[in-house]
Amino acid sequence: MGGDHGPSVTLPSCARFLRDHDDANLLLVGLPDVLQTAWAQQPGVAQLAPERVKIVAASEVVSMDDPVEVALRKKKDSSMRIAIQQVRDGTAQAAVSAGNTGALMAVARYLLKTMEGIDRPAIASQMPNAKGGGTTVLDLGANVDCDSEHLLQFAVMGSALVSVLSDKEHPTVGLLNIGEEAIKGNDTIKHARTLMLKAAAKGQLAFYGNVEGNDIFKGTTDIVVCDGFVGNVALKTSEGLASMVAAFLKSEFSRSPLTRVAGAMAYPVLSAFKKRVDYRRYNGAALLGLRGLVFKSHGSADALAFGTALHRAYESARNDLLQKLETRISAAAPLLQNGLDDEDVPALPAADQEQAA
Amino acid sequence: MGGDHGPSVTLPSCARFLRDHDDANLLLVGLPDVLQTAWAQQPGVAQLAPERVKIVAASEVVSMDDPVEVALRKKKDSSMRIAIQQVRDGTAQAAVSAGNTGALMAVARYLLKTMEGIDRPAIASQMPNAKGGGTTVLDLGANVDCDSEHLLQFAVMGSALVSVLSDKEHPTVGLLNIGEEAIKGNDTIKHARTLMLKAAAKGQLAFYGNVEGNDIFKGTTDIVVCDGFVGNVALKTSEGLASMVAAFLKSEFSRSPLTRVAGAMAYPVLSAFKKRVDYRRYNGAALLGLRGLVFKSHGSADALAFGTALHRAYESARNDLLQKLETRISAAAPLLQNGLDDEDVPALPAADQEQAA
Repeated sequence: MGGDHGPSVTLPSCARFLRDHDDANLLLVGLPDVLQTAWAQQPGVAQLAPERVKIVAASEVVSMDDPVEVALRKKKDSSMRIAIQQVRDGTAQAAVSAGNTGALMAVARYLLKTMEGIDRPAIASQMPNAKGGGTTVLDLGANVDCDSEHLLQFAVMGSALVSVLSDKEHPTVGLLNIGEEAIKGNDTIKHARTLMLKAAAKGQLAFYGNVEGNDIFKGTTDIVVCDGFVGNVALKTSEGLASMVAAFLKSEFSRSPLTRVAGAMAYPVLSAFKKRVDYRRYNGAALLGLRGLVFKSHGSADALAFGTALHRAYESARNDLLQKLETRISAAAPLLQNGLDDEDVPALPAADQEQAA
Repeated sequence: MGGDHGPSVTLPSCARFLRDHDDANLLLVGLPDVLQTAWAQQPGVAQLAPERVKIVAASEVVSMDDPVEVALRKKKDSSMRIAIQQVRDGTAQAAVSAGNTGALMAVARYLLKTMEGIDRPAIASQMPNAKGGGTTVLDLGANVDCDSEHLLQFAVMGSALVSVLSDKEHPTVGLLNIGEEAIKGNDTIKHARTLMLKAAAKGQLAFYGNVEGNDIFKGTTDIVVCDGFVGNVALKTSEGLASMVAAFLKSEFSRSPLTRVAGAMAYPVLSAFKKRVDYRRYNGAALLGLRGLVFKSHGSADALAFGTALHRAYESARNDLLQKLETRISAAAPLLQNGLDDEDVPALPAADQEQAA
């Protein structure tokens, strides 16, 4: 039901998804009348085996500007909430929504709870890079204040995500900082670097070291870790620059009859360029650290973009992301919780230590 | 002497600057032999009145990768240091360097000291926006940990800077956040917003409210305020995206003979586009909050870009930026230091208050 366009975008995308993925079934959660009518109009759905798609009724919809409180306490029969309940109850292996991010995170966290060893779920998504792939960045806005252990948790979770969505078992992790040197950054970042080095020494992480903002687009590492404030600013700043560049190019090419001819000549090239940075190929953010898989599509996604989010959720479920997250998190557990590894555990009881000091 | 190219870029730019600004004189600070030889080769300098340019000798140069400690404690006769001494001693009205940013800030802070009412100097620079102008962003990396009062100090200093470099007496200020709503962000940001609202109510600031990363390029406000960590990430992320876009366009246009023809056709349009986002038009970051004017050019600046930095320093000196900073800072002094305005000052002595509580 969600996103800027609702079922007019999500349902065509769902129909396509079922045709492309023979082993997948869908639960369409929302206002049953709306969904039934719109679904029947999708091309080819009459040919699908009836067990492959089921409409699950919800009587309410969380709007894009509903406060988190409303989603959490008032609209208890929202499509968003019922969809996540399907995941909690094991009826669905993953939920995908194009709705309100804050509400989705809050409802998912309330219903699913966080995984053992994880204090805070994070939002992870890809940004296109110069190598032709995508750099996975997290957190993109769920956590405005993070300590060093949270950043390490993000690194471990991001590694699990990328390992199931790519062919890399040990994707590289960069810590977003304002310089590559160890002395750069604030205390939280410096300590996070130390923790990541420890995790790397134990084989729990392929830690590259500090990276800077430009490394996201260079594709220096597979994953870039930062707190949600910084990640959100980096994402939105990039979106702002991309919009400005697109608008400038458009205005320059439509300035005169001559430039319009040049634009027509350059059209195939500009399309190829656009395709390389097309956000629709990178749509589908993972809400990581919950006891269930939830993916968030961009609210303005079209059917192609929403399809990428569905595909990403499908691949994550099929490759057992949840299990892989648990394995990696439990391996790194002592570092994740209080930055201690085995050698750091005090040999003496606290009282004796005080005496010794 | 500084920057990636040294006198081969800075001196042509200086010669041009003197021709363009009849009322300006220059002190060229650095290795006298190098400067003398290179300066004599600049076109038209023989015609300049001899009092308009003077070479000030320094025996050392801070390199781009010298640690701050080296610049501060070892190279005491560096061109950077001697140049800033000219400002401190009143021999120069402003210093411009294309050298190592960290070293420049440290040496400037050591020699000039911070202004009354300012805890930490900030780095302010322009980023091009969709309105065709530039958005002034600060801090861009001098301060990795900021409290709310620091952010307010940046807002006041940024306003003074933009007021002398543009025709706006009351430039608008946005507080960089991850949403426009008052409840967004961490405690530091929320409190900074409250302080800025107070300052605005007293006419000390044209405060717009929260802005997001994309607003930098939209040009929603004249000034965007953030801590140095966030600002540095936003700046470098933008640089990374811009480089990727430029490289993609280049590679798409050189893919085949056909696309190369399209590229030739589109060349004037692409040049016009490039000019609109040309960083060289926005070069010259101000180190604000010091008892003297210091400007930092991008290290990779060419002669045109370095000229923009020189011009910016010139305009700031000519329009008495230092005096305007002092006036604005002293007006906002109680808010800047501890977030208190007159009404907040407790009516009761501390002891009575405790009793009352």
